[in-house]
Amino acid sequence: MTEAIQGRSRSGRRGRGGKPEAAAPLREVNYRQLKNPFPTMDVFSADEIANMHETALRTLEELGIKVLLPEARKIYAKGGARVDESTEMVYIGRDMVEAAVASAPKSIKGMAGARHRDITLELGSLVFQPGAGAPNATDLERGRRPGSARDYKEYIQLTHHFDVFQMISPQVEPQDVPIHERHYFTSDMQLTLSDKFPFTFSRGTPQVMDCFEMIRDFRGISDDEFQANPWNYTIINTNSPRTLDIPMAQGLIDFAKFGQMSIVTPFTLMGAMAPITVAGSITLSHAEALAAITLVQLTRPGAPICYGTFTSNVDMKSGAPAFGTPSHFQASLAAGQLARHLGLPWRSAAGSASNVNDVQAANENQMGLWGCLMAGATVVIHAAGWLEGGLTVSYEKLVTDAEVLNMVAELCAGKTATADEIGFHNALSEVDPSGHFFASSQTMERYNSEFYEPVVHDYANFGTWTERGAQDTNTRATAVWKSILAADKRPEVDETRVEALRNFIEKRKSEGGAPPES
Amino acid sequence: MTEAIQGRSRSGRRGRGGKPEAAAPLREVNYRQLKNPFPTMDVFSADEIANMHETALRTLEELGIKVLLPEARKIYAKGGARVDESTEMVYIGRDMVEAAVASAPKSIKGMAGARHRDITLELGSLVFQPGAGAPNATDLERGRRPGSARDYKEYIQLTHHFDVFQMISPQVEPQDVPIHERHYFTSDMQLTLSDKFPFTFSRGTPQVMDCFEMIRDFRGISDDEFQANPWNYTIINTNSPRTLDIPMAQGLIDFAKFGQMSIVTPFTLMGAMAPITVAGSITLSHAEALAAITLVQLTRPGAPICYGTFTSNVDMKSGAPAFGTPSHFQASLAAGQLARHLGLPWRSAAGSASNVNDVQAANENQMGLWGCLMAGATVVIHAAGWLEGGLTVSYEKLVTDAEVLNMVAELCAGKTATADEIGFHNALSEVDPSGHFFASSQTMERYNSEFYEPVVHDYANFGTWTERGAQDTNTRATAVWKSILAADKRPEVDETRVEALRNFIEKRKSEGGAPPES
Repeated sequence: MTEAIQGRSRSGRRGRGGKPEAAAPLREVNYRQLKNPFPTMDVFSADEIANMHETALRTLEELGIKVLLPEARKIYAKGGARVDESTEMVYIGRDMVEAAVASAPKSIKGMAGARHRDITLELGSLVFQPGAGAPNATDLERGRRPGSARDYKEYIQLTHHFDVFQMISPQVEPQDVPIHERHYFTSDMQLTLSDKFPFTFSRGTPQVMDCFEMIRDFRGISDDEFQANPWNYTIINTNSPRTLDIPMAQGLIDFAKFGQMSIVTPFTLMGAMAPITVAGSITLSHAEALAAITLVQLTRPGAPICYGTFTSNVDMKSGAPAFGTPSHFQASLAAGQLARHLGLPWRSAAGSASNVNDVQAANENQMGLWGCLMAGATVVIHAAGWLEGGLTVSYEKLVTDAEVLNMVAELCAGKTATADEIGFHNALSEVDPSGHFFASSQTMERYNSEFYEPVVHDYANFGTWTERGAQDTNTRATAVWKSILAADKRPEVDETRVEALRNFIEKRKSEGGAPPES
Repeated sequence: MTEAIQGRSRSGRRGRGGKPEAAAPLREVNYRQLKNPFPTMDVFSADEIANMHETALRTLEELGIKVLLPEARKIYAKGGARVDESTEMVYIGRDMVEAAVASAPKSIKGMAGARHRDITLELGSLVFQPGAGAPNATDLERGRRPGSARDYKEYIQLTHHFDVFQMISPQVEPQDVPIHERHYFTSDMQLTLSDKFPFTFSRGTPQVMDCFEMIRDFRGISDDEFQANPWNYTIINTNSPRTLDIPMAQGLIDFAKFGQMSIVTPFTLMGAMAPITVAGSITLSHAEALAAITLVQLTRPGAPICYGTFTSNVDMKSGAPAFGTPSHFQASLAAGQLARHLGLPWRSAAGSASNVNDVQAANENQMGLWGCLMAGATVVIHAAGWLEGGLTVSYEKLVTDAEVLNMVAELCAGKTATADEIGFHNALSEVDPSGHFFASSQTMERYNSEFYEPVVHDYANFGTWTERGAQDTNTRATAVWKSILAADKRPEVDETRVEALRNFIEKRKSEGGAPPES
């Protein structure tokens, strides 16, 4: 439960029958460490999944993958792969892949700025991250614009506010910050405005090393402590089909060397950079993920890596990406089956192609979300805020999607049916036919805690809603994010570490910063 | 797939590479007879469910149910119940309930106007019905108004258009049709504008008998054929807590006598007319449903009856009903467990409390829908169009919710991963690293059939979408329903039967119609 909701309950009406509010306890639900309560759904048979895995192995052995980074090709070659330097093609044997899957950790502990913010990534756990990587930001007051430092900062504040986002994502690109200094800004914002698990872009070794140093020092830990568990993560997209470019390969190696977590995600659109079928596109995605996992495990056996897929279809009329479609849903299910085949934690993604936070945006995001949930995804990326297939993040959509995620987190908490809850004596037998339960003993004990209280959904009837200005959800969401930013609640931070961080940043800037290359 | 979608594909672009469109087959998915592919989810343990069932039986035995119709009390008494005529209370023994559950059919065949429209209701099958029972209609062009004959007719046409609605519902009340003649109008519209499974209101025996006669004659069947299977259905709401009023009890008896189907649905709002807990409210709902099932089976053993629940919570600050909440979702899950405990087909419901078709409306409806799907509901009522907790149906929301239901129907169809679909030879090995699959053999074979084509979702990028007028989904939905009404596609009907129906109606009207009472 977020603080805002708690605050609303506390300042709410007095108890029924003149009793003070304290008579009924308030609702407290932990949204921070979730277990997925939904049964996993298979789209393919076990034989079909085995065939897809086999075909992915054959693809890596016979067709190979193009690896643009010489250091990565060397690591593959040293590990036993056949490498053709003239074509930059790497052919990876199944024994190498199997050894890599065996040494990859099945459970990953992500270390945040406070222990109650730590996350565990393993099959069965459930972690949400808002939208990532958008060049643009939008809201109803300021319109759609290129992402700025202000937008980046505000998204960190909004992400920090909602407990249901357990990881920070790079929601928007702060395009007005010079690229060779951008990682200082993003690290500063993530560390000082939130104590959640932070993200680092793989934009060349110098930037990554800067970020590792800032995180290690700000968290006040030793090199050994830093390398024992991931204290940040990166997302690696392969260039489908079958290509691993220089920054992505370098990122996998850099993160592996320091025991930090990569989430490897082939972003495959069926019918465009992947086969048109669910089975074909996921087989390709699986092959590419296995290649990346192999590189990571060859670099440092046991290094934390999260399997991933993000596969949806294109609109065959226009070639435009679509999200929240039946094919997207089924691709998540298939990826989940393959992740369970490997036994690894894995990420999938929701998302929307809509250009505005409207009914399509809501329906696509939620449809994609249910695909992830029923696929047993460990991490659901782009769970909130994404519009235009990721080209824009919306302040309002972040709020309205968070409402849905909060409700999912409530479902994770489950329910019981004790005798008190079934209520023969304290409810059913207390009320006459056609009576009401407003004043039953059971209601009096629970009226403040039984139900989830929404952030932005409104249950007022049509007359009251009209009198209040007939605001739609999107408009109400503007008021919600503005109130969160105005409250500006921050985690406790050690001011001496903030000062040290800022001094480090000034020093590195004066030395010229770090270009986004290795 | 609806005809509109097929039409769009057929009139679409030519095939790639200059080949005529005929090169790739079109998509054909049957949305008419669905099987639920989603794994069922339990919210309570088997012991807890057994305790709830036991408490429901105890409630009927010890607390009793108030039955306002003397004929119903007589039937209960004759069946062995203890009846107190002075209080109208009926106390039903568990042996009576168990016998009723045993004689209730586990599979019900609903007969429509054409055999391909028939439906089967049993655990595992999945049937959708749009919103039911709203006094008001709304759309973006004409605004919110009391429901009229025109609205009723248009909703029948829209319901008929979408294959994913397998049952007709009384979406809106035609308030401008006199109440003693309204059932003639609604029967005429349902029978002549659609060949789907129709609905009859239980508004007194004379109206019900009129409707049975109209349906029997229009379908051209004998009395025996009519009574052998249901040819229409009604929905019976108990007056929670523990009251069965006169029209509802009469409806159960009338439909049972003629072998027609009742869906019995206690509409219980947690914290208002039901206990505040999921366990308590569903226990009450279960008891009331069991009482109704018992009345039906005492009237005619084997008569078709569908178990039902519709339970959500109220907002404890205002007392207003809420839908698509975690409590609503969990109530559906619990009801599903009890339905499986009984082995009976059952209905649940989606719905929205939003006052306009916006993000809240979409998110609530879809959240409620997933509750129904994971609960294994046989019939999902209020699956499309509901706003304001059922006080209004929206033309646009009918369209946008149908999009979601279409996608669910696509998921029902499943996917396979044959060698051709995995595509090592016809896709993966054909495309070089960093290439694209637009022209692979696999894509050429499937580009017209692989993906679901949306009704109202739009994948255009921001620039194109802006050039086209920046219409949100709700606005685009207006164009969709207007085009469906303009097309005015109707089922084939026997004109002599239409004439006979109209003659019957005129004759009955001249005789004074039928008042809504027995």
